[in-house]
Amino acid sequence: MTTTDDHAQKPPRKDPWELPDVSGLVVGVLGGTGDQGRGLAYRLALAGQEVIIGSRAAERAAGAAAEIGHGVEGADNAECARRSDIVIVAVPWDGHKALLASLREDLAGKLVVDCVNPLGFDKKGAYALTPEEGSAAEQAASLLPDSRVTAAFHHLSAVLLQDPAVESIDTDVLVLGEARADTDLVQALAQRITGMRGVFAGRLRNAHQVESLVANLISVNRRYKAHAGLRVTDV
Amino acid sequence: MTTTDDHAQKPPRKDPWELPDVSGLVVGVLGGTGDQGRGLAYRLALAGQEVIIGSRAAERAAGAAAEIGHGVEGADNAECARRSDIVIVAVPWDGHKALLASLREDLAGKLVVDCVNPLGFDKKGAYALTPEEGSAAEQAASLLPDSRVTAAFHHLSAVLLQDPAVESIDTDVLVLGEARADTDLVQALAQRITGMRGVFAGRLRNAHQVESLVANLISVNRRYKAHAGLRVTDV
Repeated sequence: MTTTDDHAQKPPRKDPWELPDVSGLVVGVLGGTGDQGRGLAYRLALAGQEVIIGSRAAERAAGAAAEIGHGVEGADNAECARRSDIVIVAVPWDGHKALLASLREDLAGKLVVDCVNPLGFDKKGAYALTPEEGSAAEQAASLLPDSRVTAAFHHLSAVLLQDPAVESIDTDVLVLGEARADTDLVQALAQRITGMRGVFAGRLRNAHQVESLVANLISVNRRYKAHAGLRVTDV
Repeated sequence: MTTTDDHAQKPPRKDPWELPDVSGLVVGVLGGTGDQGRGLAYRLALAGQEVIIGSRAAERAAGAAAEIGHGVEGADNAECARRSDIVIVAVPWDGHKALLASLREDLAGKLVVDCVNPLGFDKKGAYALTPEEGSAAEQAASLLPDSRVTAAFHHLSAVLLQDPAVESIDTDVLVLGEARADTDLVQALAQRITGMRGVFAGRLRNAHQVESLVANLISVNRRYKAHAGLRVTDV
């Protein structure tokens, strides 16, 4: 790898760790009844964030919300989207396109955080699928022209997120997006969770490899009987 | 992410950290006069490994080897391949296919470690290129049917590798391959370098995202003025 180094001849830049306060924002989790969604909702609520989980059926969402506790509410996906400032998309890849297409208006103006990993599975394990748009995040961006689409939270273990005995989620969250104001918000949201750090990691056109890396982490988990996450060093 | 967990009903398995002794193996570095190749050659030689760097011209390789010191030798690429047990491919992506095709016989029977990252660059930064074969590593495997092809050493900073003031390269090396005996050897080789750990991270079909992730690390480096690497957590 040849790393670029552009220290020279640039004006002083904003401290990349100076992130906005997101504690007052409402966070929606589409697919909030799945393992990943439940885990994120639990951790964010535990941190004091107002969280609404969404599901196809409002009743199912309400049931899951009650199980999670910590003030989490449930709603159908459209209401979840409308009532939230930041909307995490944690649905299975299979339903990603149809769901987002149906929520285009409800998600207008919202900060959308896609954390979907398009993967296939066979007897040799997991492998990356390549969406026509390049990545799940770019598919979201193409379906939601009136939303601000980012990508993050791909490499978290749903097992660790949901385990109340685990006090700290010691991992970095790679955050991708086109606008710094948006990725800063998502980084700040990640940092609400104890142990977690949000690290900017590029534009959406580089989301595919971040999504696909989950296939590798699944291999790591199998070999080492672990719940692997990532840390970025020297940052 | 839904991580698989197959603790149950399996026979006891070999400790994944029980790795072979590679201290007696000769390591060749094709493209050893480039920044990444020089850096790896320097670190491995410093660890006591016998290292031969290869270049198109033997003289150029000998000159670079003399600059690196620590007993590193130089040779033309074909001789480098023939004399080595493990051959690291650290050439630019542009020359990858032609070089490996020309070395098919010299590399027969060798353990090949591809660390090439197929990337494009434009004014928005780096982005992933997708080789026809899926990844640089899979291209190598298709060109070298008589070699044992693995992929590793993608996420290292050539700056840190080459800096003698940096005593420890604190990063994990994701190692991919089809045969455990081969990936174990590459992991062991990575662990010869102070601070470095070799972590098995899947089959070659999952190499593309590992190679491409360098585009994201370049974004990280730019934002944080860093030489980013990766650590796998919970392992």
